[in-house]
Amino acid sequence: MERTGGAVVQVSFDAQRLFALMEELDIGLILASSRHNVRYLTGGYYYPLYMWDGNTMRTQHLSFVVVPLDRLDGSFFIGRPTEEGIMDEGGVWPYERFESERIGSLSTIDKTVEVLRRFGLDRGRIGVELSYLPADAFQKLAHELPDAEFIDASAVFDPLRAIKRPEEIRLMRIGLARNLESIESVLASGCEGETTLEVADRVRAEFRRCELHYLYSLVCAGPSFFRAPSEKRIWQRGRPLHIDAGGVLDGYIAEVCRSGFLGPPTALADELLQGCHELSDAARKQLRPAVAARELQGTAEEFLRRHELGRYGRFIAHGIGMVHHEDPVVNSTSQDVLQAGMVLSVETEFLHPEVGHVKVEDTVLITDSGNEVMTPDGFRWHLSE
Amino acid sequence: MERTGGAVVQVSFDAQRLFALMEELDIGLILASSRHNVRYLTGGYYYPLYMWDGNTMRTQHLSFVVVPLDRLDGSFFIGRPTEEGIMDEGGVWPYERFESERIGSLSTIDKTVEVLRRFGLDRGRIGVELSYLPADAFQKLAHELPDAEFIDASAVFDPLRAIKRPEEIRLMRIGLARNLESIESVLASGCEGETTLEVADRVRAEFRRCELHYLYSLVCAGPSFFRAPSEKRIWQRGRPLHIDAGGVLDGYIAEVCRSGFLGPPTALADELLQGCHELSDAARKQLRPAVAARELQGTAEEFLRRHELGRYGRFIAHGIGMVHHEDPVVNSTSQDVLQAGMVLSVETEFLHPEVGHVKVEDTVLITDSGNEVMTPDGFRWHLSE
Repeated sequence: MERTGGAVVQVSFDAQRLFALMEELDIGLILASSRHNVRYLTGGYYYPLYMWDGNTMRTQHLSFVVVPLDRLDGSFFIGRPTEEGIMDEGGVWPYERFESERIGSLSTIDKTVEVLRRFGLDRGRIGVELSYLPADAFQKLAHELPDAEFIDASAVFDPLRAIKRPEEIRLMRIGLARNLESIESVLASGCEGETTLEVADRVRAEFRRCELHYLYSLVCAGPSFFRAPSEKRIWQRGRPLHIDAGGVLDGYIAEVCRSGFLGPPTALADELLQGCHELSDAARKQLRPAVAARELQGTAEEFLRRHELGRYGRFIAHGIGMVHHEDPVVNSTSQDVLQAGMVLSVETEFLHPEVGHVKVEDTVLITDSGNEVMTPDGFRWHLSE
Repeated sequence: MERTGGAVVQVSFDAQRLFALMEELDIGLILASSRHNVRYLTGGYYYPLYMWDGNTMRTQHLSFVVVPLDRLDGSFFIGRPTEEGIMDEGGVWPYERFESERIGSLSTIDKTVEVLRRFGLDRGRIGVELSYLPADAFQKLAHELPDAEFIDASAVFDPLRAIKRPEEIRLMRIGLARNLESIESVLASGCEGETTLEVADRVRAEFRRCELHYLYSLVCAGPSFFRAPSEKRIWQRGRPLHIDAGGVLDGYIAEVCRSGFLGPPTALADELLQGCHELSDAARKQLRPAVAARELQGTAEEFLRRHELGRYGRFIAHGIGMVHHEDPVVNSTSQDVLQAGMVLSVETEFLHPEVGHVKVEDTVLITDSGNEVMTPDGFRWHLSE
C-alpha cells in the first residue's frame, strides 16, 4: 500500500488502478464532481436531498471528491453546508471534509479554491469532469487557479469504472432481474389496440411494484420503427412489439429489451428473431478477455453481411454500469480491449419494413474464461393472446 | 401578436413576458438547455430516453430551444439524431428542428453553431444557461462564436417561470395532495424504535403507491436535529419526528413537511408547533401581490424576535415549481416583489435542544386578493400510538 502514502485507507474502488490511469495522463490531482463519480469514489454517497435532482437556486448542487496522485490519505471532500455531519453519520470516505459557505455550485468553487491553495494543490495538471461541471463553475475555477492546467478526467474515470467489482455485479444482477420480470410480465399480458404509451405506463407500474427506479421505456409496435411511447401507435394482432426499458438500483442502470408478439408469430418474424439469436451467438464467441472491442464489432458486421436478411440488421454493444453507455466503447475504431469484470449491453436487432423492429438487448459479463449472460432467455417471443 | 413576427404560434408560456425579460437584459437571442427550461418552453417535451438521466458516452444529452427576440416564428430546436420524428409525433413546438450528427453534447454544439451561422444569429448578446451547460460544451460554443457575447439566461428564465399558469398550478395541486397523503399516512403509523431510514423508505413506498416520482425524504427524530435518513436514529416514545419529502409530477416538484409525535405531545413540543402556526400566520398576512419579498422575511424575523422561544425559530420561504428552490427569492436583501400566480414554499420551524426539530412546510399560492394554502391542515400533530 505504499502508493497510498503508507496510511491504511479503506475505499470501495481500485486505488492502484486510479493512480495508474492518472499517471498515464500525467495528472497530479483529480476532482470528481458528477453524481455517478462522486458515488463511485465514496461507495455510494451523495447528498440525500440531491440524489435525484440537484437543481436549486439558479444553480446546481456541486461537490468534489479530490484525490492527489498516490495519496488516498491526502484526499478530501468539498460539499455544501451540513454535508460533513451527514458523511460522518455514514462513515463515508474521504474523512477530511470541507463545507462551502452557501448552497450552490459557485460557493463550492470558492471553498475548493481556498482549500487547494492552502494545501499547495492549486497548480499543475488537474483532472476535472469537463462534460459534467457547470460552465460557470468551471470558468470560476479556471480563473482562480491560473497556474493549473485542466484535463478532462473522463479518460480516468471511465476506464476505472469499466471493470466492475463483485458487489457492483451483484447489484446489477438484482436490477436486471427486476427489469426483466417487469418487461416479461407486460409483454405476456398485452392486448390488441393497446397504445405504446399504455404499454410504457404498465412497465413503469411494474418497476414501481418491484422497486426499480424508473428511467425510460421505449416501446415499438410493428410494422413501425417508432420507439417513443405514443398515443397514436397501437399493438395489432399479428405484429411484434418490443419493450426497451431502463431502471436504476443504487446507482446502477439495468437495461433490457425483449420482443413480444400478439397471436402466433409469422414465419418472417420468426426468422428475424432467430437472426438476433444467431447474431448474439456470433458476438458472444468473441466476448472474452483480451479481445479487441473493434474485433467484436467486426465479427458482428461480418455476420450481418453474410445473413440473408442482414441488410435489415444492426449490432450495438456498449459498456453499462452507473452510466447508460459507458466504457468499453465497441465500434470499428475502438481502442478498448475486453477484460474480465467488464459488463456489456449487447443489442441485436432487425428493422424489417414488413414486420417492424425486432430487438433483444442482453447484459453480458466478461468472465475470466469467457462470458455470462446476466439476462437469460431473450430469444423467444413473449406471447400475448 | 405583432411581437411574434405576425405569425400565429401556439406556445405554452407567456411569450410577451419572455421578450420583455430579454429586452431588460438586452439579449437578442436565448438558448434554453436545462431539462426544466426545455420542458417549460416546449410544454413538457424532453427526449424520452433522457427524461430522468441524460448521461451517456462520457457526455450528456444536450438540446436547445432557440428563441430570437420577438420572433416566436423564427424559433427552433436542436436535438440529437431521431429527435425530430419524436417531436413531430407529439406536435411539439418549435416546429423547425435540427438534429446533431452524433449523440452527445459536443455534437449538439457543432450543429448549433452551424445553424446560428446560417441564420445570421451567431453574434450579439446571447443568453445561455451558464449554470447548466456542461463546461466543455460552453467552451466550444464560445470558441466557435467569437462575435457573440454570452449572458447568463437565468435572469430571464427564473422570473418567467416564477408566475405559474393555471395548468401548472393544477399539476402542483395533484403532486402536493399525493405527497401530503403519503407523509400523513407514514406519520400516523409510526412505531417506537423505527429508524429514520425505515421511515424514509416507507415514504418512498407511499410515493410509489400514489404514483409520485420520488426525489427525497428527510426525516428528523427528536431530540436530534439530524435530518438525513439513518440506521442509527430512531423514533422514541414522547418525541416528535418530522418528514420533509419531495416528489415530482410531470416536471413539477411537490415539497411538504409535517410533524408527528409518538404518544401524547409534551407541553413544550405543543408550544413549538403552535409557534410554527403563529409564525406562518404572521407571514401569510404578507403573502399578497405587490409585497416586497424582503418585507415578508422582515415580518417573520420580527415575529421571532418577539416570540418567547424565537431564538430557536427559523423562517425560510422560496419559490417552487420545476426547480426545488426557484424565484421569487425571499430573504432580507431580495429585490423580488410578490405577484399573483407565484407559488411559495413556506417553512416554519423550531430547533429546540430538549425537544428536537419541529417543522411544517406548506406550499402557498399568491392570488389576486391574497393567498391560498395548497397544503391544508399542517399545524396539528400527526399522532402515532
